[in-house]
Amino acid sequence: MVHKVIFDTDPGVDDAMALYFALAHPEIEVIGITTTFGNVTVQQATANGLYLSRICGREIPVAGGGAVPLMKAPGTPPGFIHGDDGLGNLPSRVAVQGQAESQSAAEFIVAMARAYPGEISLVAVGPFVNLGLALKLEPELPKLIKQVIMMAGTVIEPGNVSPVAEANVWNDPHAADLVFTAGWNLVMVGLDVTHRVVMPATYFTQLAEHHQHHLAMDTLNHAAQFYCDFYLRERPDLGHACFGHDILTFVYLVAPQLFQTQDGRVRVQLEGLGNGQTMMDRHGGLQYAQAGWEKHRPQTTVCMKVDAEQCLSLIKQTLESDWLQAPLVL
Amino acid sequence: MVHKVIFDTDPGVDDAMALYFALAHPEIEVIGITTTFGNVTVQQATANGLYLSRICGREIPVAGGGAVPLMKAPGTPPGFIHGDDGLGNLPSRVAVQGQAESQSAAEFIVAMARAYPGEISLVAVGPFVNLGLALKLEPELPKLIKQVIMMAGTVIEPGNVSPVAEANVWNDPHAADLVFTAGWNLVMVGLDVTHRVVMPATYFTQLAEHHQHHLAMDTLNHAAQFYCDFYLRERPDLGHACFGHDILTFVYLVAPQLFQTQDGRVRVQLEGLGNGQTMMDRHGGLQYAQAGWEKHRPQTTVCMKVDAEQCLSLIKQTLESDWLQAPLVL
Repeated sequence: MVHKVIFDTDPGVDDAMALYFALAHPEIEVIGITTTFGNVTVQQATANGLYLSRICGREIPVAGGGAVPLMKAPGTPPGFIHGDDGLGNLPSRVAVQGQAESQSAAEFIVAMARAYPGEISLVAVGPFVNLGLALKLEPELPKLIKQVIMMAGTVIEPGNVSPVAEANVWNDPHAADLVFTAGWNLVMVGLDVTHRVVMPATYFTQLAEHHQHHLAMDTLNHAAQFYCDFYLRERPDLGHACFGHDILTFVYLVAPQLFQTQDGRVRVQLEGLGNGQTMMDRHGGLQYAQAGWEKHRPQTTVCMKVDAEQCLSLIKQTLESDWLQAPLVL
Repeated sequence: MVHKVIFDTDPGVDDAMALYFALAHPEIEVIGITTTFGNVTVQQATANGLYLSRICGREIPVAGGGAVPLMKAPGTPPGFIHGDDGLGNLPSRVAVQGQAESQSAAEFIVAMARAYPGEISLVAVGPFVNLGLALKLEPELPKLIKQVIMMAGTVIEPGNVSPVAEANVWNDPHAADLVFTAGWNLVMVGLDVTHRVVMPATYFTQLAEHHQHHLAMDTLNHAAQFYCDFYLRERPDLGHACFGHDILTFVYLVAPQLFQTQDGRVRVQLEGLGNGQTMMDRHGGLQYAQAGWEKHRPQTTVCMKVDAEQCLSLIKQTLESDWLQAPLVL
């Protein structure tokens, strides 16, 4: 079976890893890349979507999306994590073919969902403004989309932008809460599992060598080294390594058996010190005094545990396969 | 060593268990009971504080405190959990000696803290309005109090009034956040440990028999059966049993070695769906994008794990000791 995927992304180093895993995997067909603000500005995200797809030889539509959150005041992209350009401050870029779609990301998502009803998996790894906007354009979207897999939030694992919040949700909590309550087939891949899968910096160097320094792999390696440098300062306990975060959404898509999940209502904290926290009802049987947790509300399938070794093995095997094509340069 | 304690409480069935554990334990001297709204109205809590102490023969000062939260709109006491009278709807009460202090709870706490600087342990097991008011009366209170042990909140364990919030904190989140940020020697005994200690209904029947149906033990047993009935509906997986919640604060006081703790900043969510959640920074080394988590803020010692078997053994041994005196009835 081949999964028809729209990849909603803010590349971003782990976004690039995720995109390349998707493009390398024989059971994934990326029919479009939609971009959002987040790790970088949306303009940079769109440029990176075009760049990353073209330098590995793939002419995939790229549609630019939301530049700012639905309601929260815009923040500043974290250049110290992903580089000011989202790819570890690349020393140079080649000129690539093609340009972004005239449709917005939300329009593109809705159009594809209508064209392929029940077929599309929406894999979203940035702030969720495009999904929020698409739900506003087409309230029936949840019935048209096969599934949504989002890199988002955390339940038990501590957060990464506050003790309780994960960055994608925190960047646009209102959009995320729309997504969690829209009533579609929804999978949350959050820090509970992404913090279990640690990728050493040497892994990316070896991957570039394995592919004889193909431009796409050298680019990924450059970005990954920068990303691992950040983690070396932030989490020295990991060694020179990084979390794969976004890549796990695609691993879930093709190998859900590597994850232990739990179903439950998930809502987002929209204000205060816990702003952007995903809160999961892990005890569906209880009646709560606090409003907002009524039992009729939609459930999310939440990834609670992961077989990290098998994940890393699948990632390695996939990215080392013979999938790269000649860069589409000008 | 004998711990000089003020017990701030909203009795409440598990409050009654806690009070009797404290009165039975040779290393605890309860110098006063201060009461708050919560499980019952503050008027009922004061009446129960007087009743529970007098029927086991102890003439302890009881000072009534806050009737409503500092800022949140008042709620309705959960009569279905503790009974409308807080003690499982006792069929009758004897008339007892004494009456409440003319001082308010907050005034009593401040006066005692000044009279015994550095000596008093404040054990608080209801909403924290009295501690909040006392901090307003005497900002130097944290320097005068030896330690505060609170039954409050949760870190990893799900909440009991929402998926993330515990009732004492949720009932007055602003007061709780004042307590967590006041900078005193503070211990949080929350659902992470209280949900590990399950007390069977039969235990209280046996205790009443062990003490030849002393009025205080029959009263406790009646209340405990009602409380266990609630849990049988709410958490049938426990059997006919209950959590000891408040009693664990005093177990911590005399046997802290039964707990595994972690120190970290704790703050309270003051609004929204996560209202009343305790949020703990379990990763003190990180710099967070979200404001409010600056590193200079005070830390709380949070109980993360507990030796439940040893707790139950200590509780049993203490309550079965020869501690009861003739009821102080009229």
